[in-house]
Amino acid sequence: MAQDKKKISREAIDAHLALGGKIEIKSKAPVKSRSDLNIFYTPGVGAVSAYLAKHRGKTRDFTIKNNTVAIVSDGSAVLGLGNIGAEGAIPVMEGKAMIYKEFAGVNAFPIVLATQDVEEIIKTVKNISPVFGGIQLEDISAPRCFEIESRLVELLDIPVMHDDQHGTAIAVLAALINAISVVGKNLAKVKIVIIGAGAAGSGIARLLVAYGIGNILVCDSKGLISNRRDDLDANKVDLARITNPGNLIGGLEEAVLGADVLIGVSTGGKITGEMIASMATKPVVFAMANPDPEILPNEAIASGAYIAASGRSDFENQINNLLVFPGVFKGALGNKVSKITTSMKIEAAVKLASLVKKPSRHEILPSPFDKRVVGAVASAIRS
Amino acid sequence: MAQDKKKISREAIDAHLALGGKIEIKSKAPVKSRSDLNIFYTPGVGAVSAYLAKHRGKTRDFTIKNNTVAIVSDGSAVLGLGNIGAEGAIPVMEGKAMIYKEFAGVNAFPIVLATQDVEEIIKTVKNISPVFGGIQLEDISAPRCFEIESRLVELLDIPVMHDDQHGTAIAVLAALINAISVVGKNLAKVKIVIIGAGAAGSGIARLLVAYGIGNILVCDSKGLISNRRDDLDANKVDLARITNPGNLIGGLEEAVLGADVLIGVSTGGKITGEMIASMATKPVVFAMANPDPEILPNEAIASGAYIAASGRSDFENQINNLLVFPGVFKGALGNKVSKITTSMKIEAAVKLASLVKKPSRHEILPSPFDKRVVGAVASAIRS
Repeated sequence: MAQDKKKISREAIDAHLALGGKIEIKSKAPVKSRSDLNIFYTPGVGAVSAYLAKHRGKTRDFTIKNNTVAIVSDGSAVLGLGNIGAEGAIPVMEGKAMIYKEFAGVNAFPIVLATQDVEEIIKTVKNISPVFGGIQLEDISAPRCFEIESRLVELLDIPVMHDDQHGTAIAVLAALINAISVVGKNLAKVKIVIIGAGAAGSGIARLLVAYGIGNILVCDSKGLISNRRDDLDANKVDLARITNPGNLIGGLEEAVLGADVLIGVSTGGKITGEMIASMATKPVVFAMANPDPEILPNEAIASGAYIAASGRSDFENQINNLLVFPGVFKGALGNKVSKITTSMKIEAAVKLASLVKKPSRHEILPSPFDKRVVGAVASAIRS
Repeated sequence: MAQDKKKISREAIDAHLALGGKIEIKSKAPVKSRSDLNIFYTPGVGAVSAYLAKHRGKTRDFTIKNNTVAIVSDGSAVLGLGNIGAEGAIPVMEGKAMIYKEFAGVNAFPIVLATQDVEEIIKTVKNISPVFGGIQLEDISAPRCFEIESRLVELLDIPVMHDDQHGTAIAVLAALINAISVVGKNLAKVKIVIIGAGAAGSGIARLLVAYGIGNILVCDSKGLISNRRDDLDANKVDLARITNPGNLIGGLEEAVLGADVLIGVSTGGKITGEMIASMATKPVVFAMANPDPEILPNEAIASGAYIAASGRSDFENQINNLLVFPGVFKGALGNKVSKITTSMKIEAAVKLASLVKKPSRHEILPSPFDKRVVGAVASAIRS
């Protein structure tokens, strides 16, 4: 099923060069006559501007704020490529903007930042927020992403979501609900090991805990996160508090012993056949580093995984936030939601999972092309 | 010719409410299959991102930076409505974005700012600049606009232009070249009075001086700008240096006596019939405050003006930067110009004027719907 990655890379380079930008801005009405100018430009637009100056709360009714999201990245954690900077981030953000429009009818514009300073990012996003109905933070490295998101959620009256944390977490929870039903285990009792304590790993751990899963272990590059370690930052201290109930210490190999589910969301991490062999029966392996997963799905299956998934479009069982973010912001905008809560995220995951009527090893999530996906997720994002 | 302004206002309110945003973001390619995702999203996009991370100078070839301008306003000087804030500015900026696409094929996105602090504006624009190929500053009040523009021109490697200064100035110079030929006077020797020393008035004065017009007087709300006044800010000190060769003092009425051309770019200023009656033969009156000109063109004619113009779309002789900005940035982007110089602006005005083969009292500028306008202006913006 997977095509040759080198071939895809060459095709992608050629296609991007041919398009010179994957999105464009279009006028929703023609401007063909003086009377069009009278209405949309001067003098008519003055009446609309004067009205909004006095009724700021009506901005959405008259402007693109109604249906427009900023996709904001500082290029510090792009895909699994790491800190490649603003310019390198643009093609990814444009790709998300394509998906927003094609899948959900939402306008999204990529904003990539020439700064990686937390305070400057917060100020910049706040300063440009008036024209946007929502802010999707994207590919911003941990632990900076946590403070940036929580401060912006507090500062702004529009929904703000860091996709790498919550979009990924919602997709993983949905996949997990179906995968565990396929292997016939009890989700409340399974042992789950998460490799990576960055944005995705942290977001996944928090959402799974909120869903009621008790036995979660998170590993960073130094091993198991536990409150017996003294090298943890504030985010990891919190992870240690809510995961690892046995307060274990050790490396990834020890953590994985007897695990039911292994979730890779690391940068440059590897999952070996030996690790999979050491797991419990019917191992479930989500290797989600992008574009190079910790283990390719076919290799995971060859090593004994019962269900294997990745984030990529060229394998079955794609667990990718593209299943989630278009619906989350379509729902938030349509239902005039100003904060996206944990219970909305859980409901979105449950609704997403429920779209697969008979989950199997080969199908734990709906296809992103399933027309029901966006509506199901959007319906969960309501007050 | 002019329609009832109240009727236009009502129609504009209705049309804006019906559209809910005048522009939209579209995908330039369909996303219908996994192979589309492979190319435009993951994994293919990773190859493009990795390439750009190493070759930042190639960003334009692969992304929307190629053909995308930010229209940035802080809402501090919107039309003639004054400091109405970010939300009120959105419909104007969206209108400009419509015009950019419909007239010039350029993508433009409105960025309205939740700050009016000069340093924060400069930082914010710099921070969001990587995805844009140019920055059009719009409706930012004087004298803040001068520092913001000049600092950004210096900081960024993409073209930055404050439209209210330079777009307006280019349109006025073009209109003036043809108007003075219609009245049969010598442009180098005419006396020109500019009412308003804000962004537009300052930009116009500087461009006319650069073009070689010697006798220009600029009035602010306190009268003639002269170096005999001690209440001038840095911008007006500079205007006093380059205009008012006789170093006159006095009010607007005195300044206008015997003038050949009267140019209104004030906020809330008025031009009276008495003023026009006191001008030289065949008076030329450009009353360009928007949406309410200093005197309506038909009233100016009734008071003896030989040529009357305004900025509005519903009168003949529209002098509006909509004739200019789409071509300026189309040229700057297409010709890879990183700074827009004074000589480019003069050439743009000359080319714009030359499109009217036989100028008359009723036609001193081409229509904005003249398909040659954008190309003529764009061809002047080259290194």
